[in-house]
Amino acid sequence: MAGAPRSIFARIAAGEVPCQKVFENEHVLAFLDIHPLADGHTLVIPKQEVAHLDQLTPEVAAELGRVLGLVARKVVQATGAPGYNVLLNNGRVAGQEVEHVHFHIVPRREGDGLGYRWRPRERTPTELEELAARIRAMP
Amino acid sequence: MAGAPRSIFARIAAGEVPCQKVFENEHVLAFLDIHPLADGHTLVIPKQEVAHLDQLTPEVAAELGRVLGLVARKVVQATGAPGYNVLLNNGRVAGQEVEHVHFHIVPRREGDGLGYRWRPRERTPTELEELAARIRAMP
Repeated sequence: MAGAPRSIFARIAAGEVPCQKVFENEHVLAFLDIHPLADGHTLVIPKQEVAHLDQLTPEVAAELGRVLGLVARKVVQATGAPGYNVLLNNGRVAGQEVEHVHFHIVPRREGDGLGYRWRPRERTPTELEELAARIRAMP
Repeated sequence: MAGAPRSIFARIAAGEVPCQKVFENEHVLAFLDIHPLADGHTLVIPKQEVAHLDQLTPEVAAELGRVLGLVARKVVQATGAPGYNVLLNNGRVAGQEVEHVHFHIVPRREGDGLGYRWRPRERTPTELEELAARIRAMP
């Protein structure tokens, strides 16, 4: 049984640790966050054990997208929230605390004090054009 | 030509308004945000004209998930960012400014002052259990 310790979410996905499940299929599990930012705060995770979105197989990433839409609809219906954020933190610098891909669905209401800090920068059209070309060229 | 005015992103997706494109296929388009929170800040949008994730067809939601992973990988490779957030705002109360589904990919670096405001609430296991059952029961 040697190897890296498995994350809490990998253990939840494997059924070794209980959760407040809201949806499950072959590739994806959704359950309530136990430290919710709002009622109905739900985590949607792949069963594939990877830390970041860009490491998922295309098939699992697709299934995750499909289930995100489905679970978001259930959360909105059950909570009556007038809006919601979907958030995924990749890497410690981005706020990731568990090294297993997990999308947050956070129901939003007026005056809840949540949301993303919005601090836009100025970039020239030429700077944007050069960067777009660099990103396009990546494999 | 009567009907509701189309959003700027619907017009970009239709090729009527230019963008700094980083990826495009039949169902999805990705391009740089012109008011970036960080270099490489990219928007990933469906060509299907809907406002919220939960309104997408399952097929388009799946394709969006697949492309999100692929574009995130390109952005990370091109920028060298040590992490990134993926963010989707659904509804005005959640910070949505354009009424067309758009995922943000925001590269993150130490001390950039970005990220989500994290204010967890206390909820008992019983409260969570009851809410999970309500969400599961939704169609």
